[in-house]
Amino acid sequence: MNQADPLGWWQRPGLEYIDGRLHFAEHDVTRLAKRFGTPSYVYSAARIKANLRRVHGALESAGMSQHTLCYAMKANRFAPLLTMLKLSGLCGIDACSPQEVVHAVSCGFRPEDISFTAGSLSERDVTLLASYDGLSMDCDSLFAIERWGQHRPGSSIGIRINPAVGIGRGDNEKLLYAGDKTSKFGVYREQFNDALALARKYNLRVTKIHFHTGCGYLTEQLPLLDKVLSASQWFIDTAETIERVNIGGGLGVPHVQTDGHLDLNAWATLIAKHYQHQNLHIEVEPGDYIVKDAGLLLLGKTYLETKRQTLFLGTDAGFNICPEPAYYQLPFQPVPLQWNGGSLQAHHVTGNINEALDLWAEDAMLPDMQDQAFLALINAGAYSASMASNHCMRGDFNQFIIL
Amino acid sequence: MNQADPLGWWQRPGLEYIDGRLHFAEHDVTRLAKRFGTPSYVYSAARIKANLRRVHGALESAGMSQHTLCYAMKANRFAPLLTMLKLSGLCGIDACSPQEVVHAVSCGFRPEDISFTAGSLSERDVTLLASYDGLSMDCDSLFAIERWGQHRPGSSIGIRINPAVGIGRGDNEKLLYAGDKTSKFGVYREQFNDALALARKYNLRVTKIHFHTGCGYLTEQLPLLDKVLSASQWFIDTAETIERVNIGGGLGVPHVQTDGHLDLNAWATLIAKHYQHQNLHIEVEPGDYIVKDAGLLLLGKTYLETKRQTLFLGTDAGFNICPEPAYYQLPFQPVPLQWNGGSLQAHHVTGNINEALDLWAEDAMLPDMQDQAFLALINAGAYSASMASNHCMRGDFNQFIIL
Ligand SMILES: Cc1ncc(COP(=O)(O)O)c(C=O)c1O
Ligand SMILES: Cc1ncc(COP(=O)(O)O)c(C=O)c1O
Repeated sequence: MNQADPLGWWQRPGLEYIDGRLHFAEHDVTRLAKRFGTPSYVYSAARIKANLRRVHGALESAGMSQHTLCYAMKANRFAPLLTMLKLSGLCGIDACSPQEVVHAVSCGFRPEDISFTAGSLSERDVTLLASYDGLSMDCDSLFAIERWGQHRPGSSIGIRINPAVGIGRGDNEKLLYAGDKTSKFGVYREQFNDALALARKYNLRVTKIHFHTGCGYLTEQLPLLDKVLSASQWFIDTAETIERVNIGGGLGVPHVQTDGHLDLNAWATLIAKHYQHQNLHIEVEPGDYIVKDAGLLLLGKTYLETKRQTLFLGTDAGFNICPEPAYYQLPFQPVPLQWNGGSLQAHHVTGNINEALDLWAEDAMLPDMQDQAFLALINAGAYSASMASNHCMRGDFNQFIIL
Repeated sequence: MNQADPLGWWQRPGLEYIDGRLHFAEHDVTRLAKRFGTPSYVYSAARIKANLRRVHGALESAGMSQHTLCYAMKANRFAPLLTMLKLSGLCGIDACSPQEVVHAVSCGFRPEDISFTAGSLSERDVTLLASYDGLSMDCDSLFAIERWGQHRPGSSIGIRINPAVGIGRGDNEKLLYAGDKTSKFGVYREQFNDALALARKYNLRVTKIHFHTGCGYLTEQLPLLDKVLSASQWFIDTAETIERVNIGGGLGVPHVQTDGHLDLNAWATLIAKHYQHQNLHIEVEPGDYIVKDAGLLLLGKTYLETKRQTLFLGTDAGFNICPEPAYYQLPFQPVPLQWNGGSLQAHHVTGNINEALDLWAEDAMLPDMQDQAFLALINAGAYSASMASNHCMRGDFNQFIIL
């Protein structure tokens, strides 16, 4: 990683400058922007599949041949993307609402491909879910076990546990699902025996434990994952009937030049260390890691203007169609579509919403943008379109998949 | 305000317990929840009109008879609400995107009723806006003056200025539009003469200055508003042709028991102090203050369960349909629909989204909720439905206006 090269750190085959023009998934991005108009999301199926294969490969190499990947569709539910995933055969689905189950099935997945984990289910939710034979249900509270038991006595279930240890991206509290503070997620040790008793009451077989304890972790957070996996053992031992362990998602992607990476082999080795000798089937349900770096958000430039001493570059879309930078303080690097290695200057890149937090990036290093009509935000494939709102009625955008 | 009475501080005529049952706009809320289902937003037209009349009244009492209120429709664009507002004759509209202009007109407003202020307009935006004869255009950058001048040479415009002083709710940086840090909003003193020169180039008459510098301010923030208004004078004097001053929105509503109120008379007196002697027409464009406390979000209870030592109450909707609590740390008080003055306990009130930030309230004081099927969040009329997303495909809700 070269500090002197802020446009270089993120380049890779499939996202790089060729003769000074940004290429993505073997397309000249300027031509895509002209054809598709802005704002538009563009996704690369090749990159998505490569990300899935990389996770499979790391688990295989570590000796974890019994494993399944369940793509967390909350990260991106664009229908063509889901259908492409089903056809690839590389993964199942992690769904977190009855509507997601219906949508996944509408895109071609079978209920058997779907692992369901969510909290605060209403009676209506449970009724709908129970009609999907084959769905793998993870109950995240005693209450959920009771409701599921009433609808599906005698079935096999998972229990989402809370190991009371969390793995966060740095100390971003917003993304911490477990830890000292009691969260709404999962069943804690203190209530786990009650949960098992409740399962017995309805003849439910508890064959899976599930946990998801944080987001966006990179290599430096792996020691925390180690603690989470250790903490899971008590639940496995106590339940006695566990055949599968779902370790959630959370695998991270670097957002800015100073972020590290996630060493997948180190990650897989950790998993093998804890579970390989136990003959357990491992499920992983990553969202971010699969689709985030496989998506670009193409924006049109609206203006370039110096206010006081600060150079602003305006764009034709705001944080409402791509909330991570504004709400989670996870900036998406703005990159020019044309770059010939000339000098760079700091730009504040803004959106078109009348809110102070509507700022794509501060001091983004860009070449002279006078003659460029477009700009791309990288890493925009996850939790962007899927969380878009029509705030200020600025919610229109297009999505395209490159197969 | 009675610390010992956490359910009492927000009660007022139109939102209060009558015989132990919550009433809103003269309806028993339990009956509304049963009829409408959950999640549902319910708005009170009577409260909205009372809020507008209160602002008018304060300005009149302070001697500011020449004034207009332009409701900031970004706060809530529910079509029946907009039509009701137009018919009330109490306000015009502040719009911030071409689509908002189209929507306001579709609900019955005329272009002459609309004041438009937005940044980062594309050529397509400006073309659409320029086709609305009578629209009052505030340009927020030199670039916008140039574009508007090309489409509408010889017209009258406003200029959004940045007084470089901000008024925030406490120190919530996310809601600060002006201040030390150079923001994207408006034209600063440093560029104002260039802006006037550009206007002259296109024969634009600069008859209005506009500023909006913060959100949610209460009485304790009025000294800062005083500074903002003082700072505006230099722009008025420099332009020489100003007839109207638009002082933006930002008037706040208390969210929690410990928040203060906004003394509207003190607010109006401040405005009069600065502008009354100058024969200027004052425009105010509040959003929050008009609709926030006129809306309830009705939620269904999904479960009640103790995790470790914490009592959780689950609901059937999450932060994605009402983002202020999660994203802006502006909690909306959860209130029971039935309350007979019994003892209260602390509850963590959660939504149904698999995200750590999906927590409506921590330690909300509620009675025993075992036999209650619903819950209401007060202050949910602004920046809630209008910012909703379909994250996790949990985006369904209903809206109702009580006329
Ligand atoms: C239960 C569960 N599994 C998986 C995920 C996917 O997480 P990520 O996208 O960080 O991999 C989430 C995200 O919130 C989740 O809540
Ligand atoms: C220019 C402008 N005017 C008015 C408003 C309304 O503000 P509030 O709802 O705080 O009154 C906003 C809100 O962002 C705004 O940007």
